[in-house]
Amino acid sequence: MGMSYLVYPGAHHTRFHHALGAMFLMQKVIQTLRFKGVGISEDESEALQVAILLHDIGHGPFSHALENSIIENVSHEHISLLFMEALNVQFNNRLTLAITIFKNQYDRKFLHQLISSQLDMDRLDYLRRDSFYTGVSEGSVNSERLIAMLNVYDDGLVVEEKGIYSVEKFIIARRLMYWQVYLHKTGIVAEQLLLRVLKRAKELVHEGIQVPATPALSFFLKTFVTVDNFGASELNTFSKLDDADVLSGMKWWLDHDDFVLRKLSQMILNRDLLKVKLKKKAPKEEHMATLLENFRSQHNLTAHEASYFVFHGVISNQAYSMDSDTINLLMKSGKVVDVAKASDQLNLKALSKKVVKHYLCYPKPNY
Amino acid sequence: MGMSYLVYPGAHHTRFHHALGAMFLMQKVIQTLRFKGVGISEDESEALQVAILLHDIGHGPFSHALENSIIENVSHEHISLLFMEALNVQFNNRLTLAITIFKNQYDRKFLHQLISSQLDMDRLDYLRRDSFYTGVSEGSVNSERLIAMLNVYDDGLVVEEKGIYSVEKFIIARRLMYWQVYLHKTGIVAEQLLLRVLKRAKELVHEGIQVPATPALSFFLKTFVTVDNFGASELNTFSKLDDADVLSGMKWWLDHDDFVLRKLSQMILNRDLLKVKLKKKAPKEEHMATLLENFRSQHNLTAHEASYFVFHGVISNQAYSMDSDTINLLMKSGKVVDVAKASDQLNLKALSKKVVKHYLCYPKPNY
Amino acid sequence: MGMSYLVYPGAHHTRFHHALGAMFLMQKVIQTLRFKGVGISEDESEALQVAILLHDIGHGPFSHALENSIIENVSHEHISLLFMEALNVQFNNRLTLAITIFKNQYDRKFLHQLISSQLDMDRLDYLRRDSFYTGVSEGSVNSERLIAMLNVYDDGLVVEEKGIYSVEKFIIARRLMYWQVYLHKTGIVAEQLLLRVLKRAKELVHEGIQVPATPALSFFLKTFVTVDNFGASELNTFSKLDDADVLSGMKWWLDHDDFVLRKLSQMILNRDLLKVKLKKKAPKEEHMATLLENFRSQHNLTAHEASYFVFHGVISNQAYSMDSDTINLLMKSGKVVDVAKASDQLNLKALSKKVVKHYLCYPKPNY
Amino acid sequence: MGMSYLVYPGAHHTRFHHALGAMFLMQKVIQTLRFKGVGISEDESEALQVAILLHDIGHGPFSHALENSIIENVSHEHISLLFMEALNVQFNNRLTLAITIFKNQYDRKFLHQLISSQLDMDRLDYLRRDSFYTGVSEGSVNSERLIAMLNVYDDGLVVEEKGIYSVEKFIIARRLMYWQVYLHKTGIVAEQLLLRVLKRAKELVHEGIQVPATPALSFFLKTFVTVDNFGASELNTFSKLDDADVLSGMKWWLDHDDFVLRKLSQMILNRDLLKVKLKKKAPKEEHMATLLENFRSQHNLTAHEASYFVFHGVISNQAYSMDSDTINLLMKSGKVVDVAKASDQLNLKALSKKVVKHYLCYPKPNY
Repeated sequence: MGMSYLVYPGAHHTRFHHALGAMFLMQKVIQTLRFKGVGISEDESEALQVAILLHDIGHGPFSHALENSIIENVSHEHISLLFMEALNVQFNNRLTLAITIFKNQYDRKFLHQLISSQLDMDRLDYLRRDSFYTGVSEGSVNSERLIAMLNVYDDGLVVEEKGIYSVEKFIIARRLMYWQVYLHKTGIVAEQLLLRVLKRAKELVHEGIQVPATPALSFFLKTFVTVDNFGASELNTFSKLDDADVLSGMKWWLDHDDFVLRKLSQMILNRDLLKVKLKKKAPKEEHMATLLENFRSQHNLTAHEASYFVFHGVISNQAYSMDSDTINLLMKSGKVVDVAKASDQLNLKALSKKVVKHYLCYPKPNY
Repeated sequence: MGMSYLVYPGAHHTRFHHALGAMFLMQKVIQTLRFKGVGISEDESEALQVAILLHDIGHGPFSHALENSIIENVSHEHISLLFMEALNVQFNNRLTLAITIFKNQYDRKFLHQLISSQLDMDRLDYLRRDSFYTGVSEGSVNSERLIAMLNVYDDGLVVEEKGIYSVEKFIIARRLMYWQVYLHKTGIVAEQLLLRVLKRAKELVHEGIQVPATPALSFFLKTFVTVDNFGASELNTFSKLDDADVLSGMKWWLDHDDFVLRKLSQMILNRDLLKVKLKKKAPKEEHMATLLENFRSQHNLTAHEASYFVFHGVISNQAYSMDSDTINLLMKSGKVVDVAKASDQLNLKALSKKVVKHYLCYPKPNY
Repeated sequence: MGMSYLVYPGAHHTRFHHALGAMFLMQKVIQTLRFKGVGISEDESEALQVAILLHDIGHGPFSHALENSIIENVSHEHISLLFMEALNVQFNNRLTLAITIFKNQYDRKFLHQLISSQLDMDRLDYLRRDSFYTGVSEGSVNSERLIAMLNVYDDGLVVEEKGIYSVEKFIIARRLMYWQVYLHKTGIVAEQLLLRVLKRAKELVHEGIQVPATPALSFFLKTFVTVDNFGASELNTFSKLDDADVLSGMKWWLDHDDFVLRKLSQMILNRDLLKVKLKKKAPKEEHMATLLENFRSQHNLTAHEASYFVFHGVISNQAYSMDSDTINLLMKSGKVVDVAKASDQLNLKALSKKVVKHYLCYPKPNY
Repeated sequence: MGMSYLVYPGAHHTRFHHALGAMFLMQKVIQTLRFKGVGISEDESEALQVAILLHDIGHGPFSHALENSIIENVSHEHISLLFMEALNVQFNNRLTLAITIFKNQYDRKFLHQLISSQLDMDRLDYLRRDSFYTGVSEGSVNSERLIAMLNVYDDGLVVEEKGIYSVEKFIIARRLMYWQVYLHKTGIVAEQLLLRVLKRAKELVHEGIQVPATPALSFFLKTFVTVDNFGASELNTFSKLDDADVLSGMKWWLDHDDFVLRKLSQMILNRDLLKVKLKKKAPKEEHMATLLENFRSQHNLTAHEASYFVFHGVISNQAYSMDSDTINLLMKSGKVVDVAKASDQLNLKALSKKVVKHYLCYPKPNY
């Protein structure tokens, strides 16, 4: 959950715990579907469990913040796949089917949908887990009931008709978690600062300035790692990188000579973040320029340096997508219908519109 | 919850318990609003607690079923008011303010809204309570959080802006409870049978046929009680009528000579109800006629008698009404906006459309 | 839970619900034991489920109150057996194995222990259920975990060693429920009044005085039913007797000519009970005599009549019995040991002493 | 919770969260006691909140492990006090009363008991919190109810008589948490390994061997910090030390030249711990010697080096102490009695005996 613990102090649960939980739900859904007569072989069952256990293994410390700072635009899904392939060699190809399903190259489509879709075991676990650990009880989903109503039709995952209200509530709960937790403005500014402190550290290293860090972090500060040069050695070092490297790095930098590196580290570790505003529109250019110039002149910085503290961006969430891989209901009549179309009302259709918000971050006056 | 315990066996909680719970929430909201600087006098506080404690006191046994069988079209709100007025005499006018607020004749509008509106303490209690006792966890609402976000603006109840997603979830949870619990088709057919068994009993009594019952029930079987003749004596007898009268009546009637009375009692007590279907449209006249005729001839009944077992009707729910007494948000900007209009999306507007369904009940073949 | 709802207003859950819950736990424990390699045949599995489903079917309305008033000293276990035997005839002997296990006449002892012992599915269900519905959260037991740790050794039910603290907590939770809920003094006085109102009604009937009641209740007021004359017809009528008969009876008697019948009914229905005290010793004879005489003379009653309102008795609870059918631990060493002896400390041994308390009931001064 | 997350993967909650929770309970208990007429001034209220908020601030990373490795026998209570005194200077003596209460030098004894006693807000928070995050539901305590039953008599904290079973359950729940969670054998061996890896690191540093670490950790590896030389500078550096320093240190040492440092780090980080046995008696000397010699010769180590991997020790828990600062009940009679003596039975007395267990740790054969 990135830096969400700054808002929800209980949110210290781990990706490892989530992986175990999602695997547990996978075991439940396999049991349920088999009970309903859906054939799932032992090999498929193992593959599903392996795939869900490893689906997030490519995440670096603090989740998404690193994908665009320490490494250059390498998605965690790509890295998860690299790990699976490495493990596949180690386990004599026993993960081949898991990888095929994970890549959606297996002909029984619903197996992939259990791992990645709008109603997969990943979401069923993380929504409930994050709701539990943050205490935002409105975000809780009834995973047992949703799983109990799953079925397979024409190789696609479907929800039995009577589950329609539970699916609606699931979509609303997820939407609530997005705006209330995952996209909480304090979490966003903290994540942006984290991303920027790492960018700055990398920048300084490449300017030849000494930036103390643990070995794994030092490697990624020194090296430009992209999709193209992400080899076995990079993967190995990446596997050693965790929150402790990033946190101990920032603690080291609290007294660093560089204003930007030092200030960003202080902001994060002392919980004294930038101001952040959420708006429907992007801020005006002049407004940004004024804020930037104020801070620049106040601390005698270059415009580039000041830009670490004054910035804006976009967050968005689509509660439900009707475009692809919809959640489908199996009606008593035998027909299969997109849940948004099966509803008595147009509320789910309304929720399929993407909502976009702009955030604007800038220093408090006394900085 | 009427006959819902036939579907949810834990749903045996009482109206008394609900009244206590709603009063407890009222105490919380008074505390919260006072803390936010909303002046509520000691008299107003007592009146609010009295009004919510008594708001449902006019309900007869099995809730709504009796309003149109035992008594003739007298609403429970009307009877609640009769009780309050009787108590007001007994307590030397100490309930006057409570009654004024209950009748929405007090100038501070939000006091009435706490008792009766789309976000009142009644709903906050019953949704959570019914969710708890049925085990339908998706219907649970976070009453504490909703109360914590209430405020008063211009004498009207408002929710602070950041509560928008919680309000959305509250509306969705209520909608889910309606279709999954309160309007569950098995509950509906059971309630219809109950209403009909009492109608039949009354009919027989007026034909001069002996129908054994407890004294309080006998009174209402013999007498046509309407709004106009609902006096002190009727109120007193009504106060003695509870589930035990109705249940013991039906047990008595299990062996009654009258086919209709006997059969209806058996159906309810032996949990062997009519078939029930939910449809988008009303059933065709011919279809109804055929079903009726089949049962009539099968048991050698009159058409009137058979009509107790073959019938249809309408149920409906409006998740949210934008017409009157909307749930209003107090925006950070200071503006007050209907939550359905404040939402990022049109989903709440979509939910303000009334949904209507038709139920059709008829005997199983082997009856 | 008898009259406990006077103390805990949520305690309106039913014996039917408990029977379903205990059967559900039975299914879980069968699954668990089979998973651990304990052979349980399909026939045994069905018998266990039937036996636990029906184990309490012989209970009359308001549980134990009737065993010594309406009927003369016939235990509910005896009546449960009569029902099972009647059903066995109806189902062509399909319940024979269930009855054998229920009567503890089957050679695999642990099957009976799952139905009736110090750690049976009955207790695992009712403690958790009663804790849930009363809100006395300290009484909750972790049924899943206890079941997960059950095993069978030498045909006897055992708990695996690591479950020792969970068993301790189970015993303490049960003890707490006894003193805080089941033996709560208000529940006790209410139950005693209920028992006495029925005794009085029966007494009056046998004196030739008119006591209106529903047919099933009238039967038991007129007839002395004992173990010896409890035949098919008595069983049939007994099956028709429920809370509604008793409640509607008392409502009828609110205006009865007989002081005792009327007053007792009023006390129960108006929640205006006798005073009750719990003491370590029995009250002194003279004290009782004074209380009795006061009330007798105040209302111009006979001593016999007054004795309905002044009485004392004994309640007791033994948290754990070391005498027979102990809860046994299967140690890692392979030995089987009574949990009270396996504990690090003597606390369970201390809890095996029976605790006895005396209650004393008498009218409030203004009666 | 030290290394307990190796057993209970949800146990990643923080000391900060616990401090907030305990302060919240303190606010509740102040409200409750004031409501019962116990005078607590505004200054006392603030002092109580400050004292409980800071009571654990002296804990280092991974709780108790460091008190005897990184620093030499300085208790966390002592360090908490140093922090409070430093803050007191910063806040112009506003913490003086908090410190006086914390040190138990204030005349109203119950104020200290709320912070530190057998039924303090610390325990009420951590038991419930740890039960919640580990999922060991048997350890949950009903803090609200316990607080609701607190009172003050003769300046001492007491529990009202009717709370006796809740207190018993609290003591049992705490005992269960000790043996099932805090003293779980896997947690113990992990904590011992952690303590030893830090001892070894310190040892190597003092032998002049290079041991890379973050600045704060390096300081404590280089310096012998005792009660006597724990000054402002040491306190400042200590405040910078957290889990990240220890974790990143161990990650660094995974490839260290020193066998002991490397191996211990690997064991902890790869979750591949020593074997651990719990026994009633200390292991025999010869047995220890054999285990040590095996490992020593297998890896060509000195006896001192091998002793890092073969060791034994003692854990103990006393569920309830009757010696000092007992939990006292205020009886309805007005007397104040130790709960262990007020109980119907001797079970609490039995639980006041200290239970001691011996652990023995040694390498798995394949090491």
